[in-house]
Amino acid sequence: MTGAGPPAEFSLIARHFRPLAGPGSLDLLDDGALLVPPRGRELVFTADAMVAGVHFLPDDPADTVGAKLLRVNLSDLAAMGATPLAYLMTVSAPRDTGDAWFAAFASGLARDQARFGITLLGGDTTATPGPMTLSLTAIGHIAPGAALRRAGAMAGDDIWVTGTVGDGALGLLALQGKVLDAGGYLAGRYRLPQPRLGLALHGVVSACMDVSDGLVQDVGHLCRAAGLGAVVEAALVPRSPAALAAGPAWLATCLTGGDDYELVMAVPPGRAGLLMAAASAGNCAVTRIGRFEAGSQVRVLDASGATVHLDRPGWSHF
Amino acid sequence: MTGAGPPAEFSLIARHFRPLAGPGSLDLLDDGALLVPPRGRELVFTADAMVAGVHFLPDDPADTVGAKLLRVNLSDLAAMGATPLAYLMTVSAPRDTGDAWFAAFASGLARDQARFGITLLGGDTTATPGPMTLSLTAIGHIAPGAALRRAGAMAGDDIWVTGTVGDGALGLLALQGKVLDAGGYLAGRYRLPQPRLGLALHGVVSACMDVSDGLVQDVGHLCRAAGLGAVVEAALVPRSPAALAAGPAWLATCLTGGDDYELVMAVPPGRAGLLMAAASAGNCAVTRIGRFEAGSQVRVLDASGATVHLDRPGWSHF
Repeated sequence: MTGAGPPAEFSLIARHFRPLAGPGSLDLLDDGALLVPPRGRELVFTADAMVAGVHFLPDDPADTVGAKLLRVNLSDLAAMGATPLAYLMTVSAPRDTGDAWFAAFASGLARDQARFGITLLGGDTTATPGPMTLSLTAIGHIAPGAALRRAGAMAGDDIWVTGTVGDGALGLLALQGKVLDAGGYLAGRYRLPQPRLGLALHGVVSACMDVSDGLVQDVGHLCRAAGLGAVVEAALVPRSPAALAAGPAWLATCLTGGDDYELVMAVPPGRAGLLMAAASAGNCAVTRIGRFEAGSQVRVLDASGATVHLDRPGWSHF
Repeated sequence: MTGAGPPAEFSLIARHFRPLAGPGSLDLLDDGALLVPPRGRELVFTADAMVAGVHFLPDDPADTVGAKLLRVNLSDLAAMGATPLAYLMTVSAPRDTGDAWFAAFASGLARDQARFGITLLGGDTTATPGPMTLSLTAIGHIAPGAALRRAGAMAGDDIWVTGTVGDGALGLLALQGKVLDAGGYLAGRYRLPQPRLGLALHGVVSACMDVSDGLVQDVGHLCRAAGLGAVVEAALVPRSPAALAAGPAWLATCLTGGDDYELVMAVPPGRAGLLMAAASAGNCAVTRIGRFEAGSQVRVLDASGATVHLDRPGWSHF
C-alpha cells in the first residue's frame, strides 16, 4: 500500500509552476497541454536553452534567470514580428537546489508573464548532476504571411538596430570584475534583456533578426541569407552612456560580444521614415549603422574609413 | 573584415540537424519557425528533458539517445490520443562531443521521424560544462474535445496497461550488470521505448496516462485526479519473458521502476471489448491489472490477496 500524496517532484511543480500555468495547460496535471490555435493566425515557434555558467552566472538572482530565459525566447518572437501566446519549459536542476531558488525563479517568470502577455503551457522538471540547465519553447502568433525573415535584404538597404549594442557583453564582464559599472546598468542589461516586441515592422523592413551572438556575426547571417556583403560603420553603432564610459578599448567587445537581444534590420532608404514612426510608436530607439552591398563580407570601418580589426565576429558554442 | 563562412556552431547545425527539418522550419535559418495549424484541430504540446547519467547512460549509442528523446515525448502525445506533427529540440552538449556522436544522434532521430511521421521545426544547440542535456517539445494534433485525460476514472473501472511493465527499469539494471539479460531484450526496452501511438481510445477509456515514473505511482496519479483509490493485482501485471527470467525478486522493481512508456487506462468493464478491438487494430497487447475503487490509496496485492510491500511507489527526481 502506498499513500496518495504526490512525490516531492510533483509537489515542487504544484508549488512553484502551477501558479504560472495558463489556458490549455490543464493545470500541468496531464501528459500534455491543449491549445486551440487563434483563428486565422499562423503560429511561430522558437526554442532556446540556457546553462548556468554559460548563459547566466550561477549566482545571478533566480528571478532574473527566469525572466532572462523567457526574454531571450521572446526576443526571437520579436524578430519574427510575432505576438507572444504561451510557452513550455524544462528545468534540469541540481538536486541541492533550494526551494527559495525555485520560488524566486518562478516569481521572475510570473512578473514577465504579466508584462509580456504569455502563460506557461507545460514542461518537465528533472534532476541533473551538472549545472542548472533550462530550455524554453515559446509560441507566438502572427497574421499569415506577415512573419519577418532573415532573408530579403537588398544591396543598398540600410542596416538599422534597435536600442544600444554591447551592454550585455560588457555587463557580463562587469559582473566578472573586468569592466567598471558603477550604477549596475550594464549588469542589468546582461541579466534582463529587453525583447523588442510590438514594433509594426511588417512592410517596413526587408529582413530582420535578433542580435544574440554578436552584432557583426549576426549581420553576417543577414548577408549570407541574401547573398550580399555589408559595411558596418563602427562610429554609428549606438552605445549606452555606461558602455561608452567603459572606455574605447571595449569597442570590439560591443561589436561582437553577444547577449544584446536587440533587432538588426535591413531597411530600404525610402522606408526610414516608416521605421522611425514604428519605433517611436513602440517607444524604442532605432539607429542606422551601415548598409548592405554586393559582396560576401561584413566590413567594419571606423570614422576614417579604416578597417576595424576584430579577432572574431561573434560567439560560437563550438 | 570578417569572412562570411558560418561559425562552427552553425555548420554543426547545418550538417546534422538541417536534414531533419520539415515544413515550417524555414530550414532552421530564421529566429523562429512557422506553423499553419491543421484546420479544425486542437494542438497538443508536451516537453520532456533527458540528462546523461539520469535518463540515459553516457555510453548509450547516440542513435538510441536521439530516438529515446523523441519517443518519451511521443509517448505523452499517445497518452493524450494525439497524432504527431512536429518538434523543437535544444541540445546542450559538452564541448568535446565528437561529430560522430551528433551524426549518430541525428540518424536515430531521422529513422524515428520517418517511423512516427514527425519532423523537426526548430531548436537550439549550446555548449555545457556538464553532462549532455537534451530537451524536446513535441506538438501533436487531435479532434476538438477528443483528448484523453488523467482525470475521469470511476469506481468500478478496470485498470488496463499496454504491453509489458518493468522491462525499462530492468534494462537499466542489466546495463549496470545487476540483472541478467542474455538476449539484450531488456536493455533494448530501456533504450528504445515504444510509444503507443495510433490506438483509437477516445470514447473507450475514461482516463489515460503513460507510465514513465513507475506503474504504482502513476496509477496513484489517476487516483488523485479522480478522488479514488485502486487495487493493483501484482500477478496480473504483464511482464515480458525476459523480465520473468530475471527472477521473482524483481517484481517490486517492475511495479515501481519507471521507464515503461506504456499506457495505463481506466476502462469501464462494459467497454473491455471495445478496448481489445482498438488494441488489436493497433497491434498492441492490453492487460487488465486491477480496478479503481472508493478510497485514496493504491493497494498492491499478490495472488493470495496479501499486500505486496514496496519501498516507494515510483521515481521522483527530488
